[in-house]
Amino acid sequence: MPETKELASYLIQSRWDDIPQDVRHEAKRAILNYVGCAVGGSREPAVDIAMHTMKPFSGEATASVFARPERLDPLHAALLNGLTSHVYEYDDTLPKNYIHPSPPVASALFSYASANPVTGRDFIHSFLLGFETEARVGNAVYPAHYEAGWHITSTAGVFGAAASVGKLMGLSTQKMIWAIGLAATQACGIREMFGSMAKFLHAGFAAKNGYTSAILANSGFTAGEHSIEGPRGFAAVQASKFDLSKITRGLGKEFQIRDNAYKPYPCGVVIHPTIDGCIEIYREFKPAPETIRAVRVRVAPLVLDLCNKRVITQGLESKYSIYHAAAIGLVRGKGGLREFSDEVATDPVIQRVRECVTPTADPSITEDQSHIEVEFTDGRKVTRFVEQSLGNLQRPLSDAQLEEKFRDQAEMVLPSAQVQRLIDLCWRLEDLASAGEILKASLPS
Amino acid sequence: MPETKELASYLIQSRWDDIPQDVRHEAKRAILNYVGCAVGGSREPAVDIAMHTMKPFSGEATASVFARPERLDPLHAALLNGLTSHVYEYDDTLPKNYIHPSPPVASALFSYASANPVTGRDFIHSFLLGFETEARVGNAVYPAHYEAGWHITSTAGVFGAAASVGKLMGLSTQKMIWAIGLAATQACGIREMFGSMAKFLHAGFAAKNGYTSAILANSGFTAGEHSIEGPRGFAAVQASKFDLSKITRGLGKEFQIRDNAYKPYPCGVVIHPTIDGCIEIYREFKPAPETIRAVRVRVAPLVLDLCNKRVITQGLESKYSIYHAAAIGLVRGKGGLREFSDEVATDPVIQRVRECVTPTADPSITEDQSHIEVEFTDGRKVTRFVEQSLGNLQRPLSDAQLEEKFRDQAEMVLPSAQVQRLIDLCWRLEDLASAGEILKASLPS
Repeated sequence: MPETKELASYLIQSRWDDIPQDVRHEAKRAILNYVGCAVGGSREPAVDIAMHTMKPFSGEATASVFARPERLDPLHAALLNGLTSHVYEYDDTLPKNYIHPSPPVASALFSYASANPVTGRDFIHSFLLGFETEARVGNAVYPAHYEAGWHITSTAGVFGAAASVGKLMGLSTQKMIWAIGLAATQACGIREMFGSMAKFLHAGFAAKNGYTSAILANSGFTAGEHSIEGPRGFAAVQASKFDLSKITRGLGKEFQIRDNAYKPYPCGVVIHPTIDGCIEIYREFKPAPETIRAVRVRVAPLVLDLCNKRVITQGLESKYSIYHAAAIGLVRGKGGLREFSDEVATDPVIQRVRECVTPTADPSITEDQSHIEVEFTDGRKVTRFVEQSLGNLQRPLSDAQLEEKFRDQAEMVLPSAQVQRLIDLCWRLEDLASAGEILKASLPS
Repeated sequence: MPETKELASYLIQSRWDDIPQDVRHEAKRAILNYVGCAVGGSREPAVDIAMHTMKPFSGEATASVFARPERLDPLHAALLNGLTSHVYEYDDTLPKNYIHPSPPVASALFSYASANPVTGRDFIHSFLLGFETEARVGNAVYPAHYEAGWHITSTAGVFGAAASVGKLMGLSTQKMIWAIGLAATQACGIREMFGSMAKFLHAGFAAKNGYTSAILANSGFTAGEHSIEGPRGFAAVQASKFDLSKITRGLGKEFQIRDNAYKPYPCGVVIHPTIDGCIEIYREFKPAPETIRAVRVRVAPLVLDLCNKRVITQGLESKYSIYHAAAIGLVRGKGGLREFSDEVATDPVIQRVRECVTPTADPSITEDQSHIEVEFTDGRKVTRFVEQSLGNLQRPLSDAQLEEKFRDQAEMVLPSAQVQRLIDLCWRLEDLASAGEILKASLPS
């Protein structure tokens, strides 16, 4: 059976009871992390501009955007939710293909559920199927597709959004094939946009265009039947090498969400192990910042290629600085959003400690590792070796750590009590009569 | 100067007085042809489905769709106008790169002008700049891009739509660079959709997404600065070979619209010369259909590869039949939309003449040529050799022939007097105080 058809058939036939318990829990973790990111990013300038520009083009305002007062039609809500949830680049990642998987799918689904009745269970189920779809489409074309310059979160994400909304709408197999086709022909987003606002909007395009694909297909708007595997289909056109068996092998048995990872810190991933180690030292010794005389860090050579920024004048730069990474860990014992704000980046105490840091490239150290030595003014020395970076698959964030990350982001925007209620709702999603309750609970009162 | 910036600067600096007279006239010809196609296609099932599906998501209904009673916001109007103008595949073509150039650009512009005040002169000017942009972007990546499976009308068209709306909005050079970037990162549309409704919607996606790029950029939404020439930009990502000098060489002096071609018949282009020759025979001899005993046609080998359909049960099939091409020319002396309708395709008289046709592949004959021999029941024989197909660059459609094509399409939808008024308005566009008058004049009363 052609891959597109086999995938569509699976999506239609999958039932809630087929989903293992651990996979359901992973879905809730991903959704919790997504909601935290969407709330956290909701006040960024890029979001304000996009909202202000697109609102006049919104249809009947039946849907909402996380933590925003404005109401939009569900397609524009999908666009904006995709933007807010990706704008801090704090969302989840599949280490196998570098997709940030939740924003395209969850943004389409929350916008749909904001305007239509959807039970919590159906929400989780369709989220998982959308997640599975984009992850598998991504696996099939990775790495050639990504290396060529495609922003895979967007190009694979549109498939996930179409599949998940299509599942909720109860499409037939034929219509699901068309929805996948309409998604395939809208797969776009290039890495040349990295470093600009356009990059963050890619997740929104994927959510909105995937959603559009599902509703058009539902109305009988036809598309090519072999949109993934055909000679002019997504794989052949957008990847010089691909493996279509990754679309279908183990469908319904192997779930890609089991490999989902969460960034503990909103900064370059290669400086994460240094933050980890410095936080450990902070927790054990609570050093007074003025007692820190020297910090010697041995890291993988790539770290100095990517994150050797020593002079820092604004928050954005601090996200790519091994010096800043060590300083915030040792002085603040944390690596949350505030630690990369303009305020903290230019704080004289942090600045002084940054100047004490000497990084060395050591080829025997992997990108998941860091060796830290702190020397204090009294001559005492403390060393720490981090073998696995927090947040990688061998050392995943615990549910409690995900909650902490959620609070760190959401409390910049919403009162603590509202944040706690949101966290509780995410964990209880499976039992909610209406999944739309979550988005509603994030709105400013 | 990087190509994206040089192109953006040209777009901003170009003035009406810089446009040669013949180029202005070519613009009016392209716009006339576009309007005829948009009106002609406005009642197709694909258009009805898209309208019905997208209308609930439309914002404030300030814009119109050619020959349709519904009102939409300008972005959705751009989507629908793109669809209607491309749905019969009767639109213009650039033989250099196979782009159908007018639908993406004109659909965005007419939708904009339907909701905002735009003079006829500004309309033509921005149309020409959008046309130039998409044609040059297409030239730079053709043929590798097209051969890889991209639907270049859509992928290059989105640049044209962004440039033309951006010009009307008076963007700065910086903002035009962002508009081009936002277009580049939405460039999509794969040829695997050919044969389905999705293919026709590509022109609509290009129009709508290009328009969206311009309004986002206008609000200060940033994008990559090197979206065409950058290492992860449009050219590198979407073409294995490209020539960026084609973006900028001769800008403002060489106008791509001088190479624009118009299909005289809404069917496979390789059967056009056979229709031409048979129409000539019809005009000279007005043969009674029952006197036709045999029709021997010598054509380029490719014709039999692509259009060897003998048994025909519906209009769509007749568009790719060398047998049908000869039959309609000889029996009806025309190759308009009606000649490819279900009714004519299954007409017993046409059917009988189709069965008299014997095509032969002849490598000495080009795809623009056809040799026709008709044998009558009285033994008489007539031959005709077509050396250049009507509508190619050596034998362009005259203004009068473009008008005839317009009437043929538009009179299926609108009363003759209204059609004539539309034609007159298109020719007078340069002097219209409001370009929006044209779209308005197409609406059902």
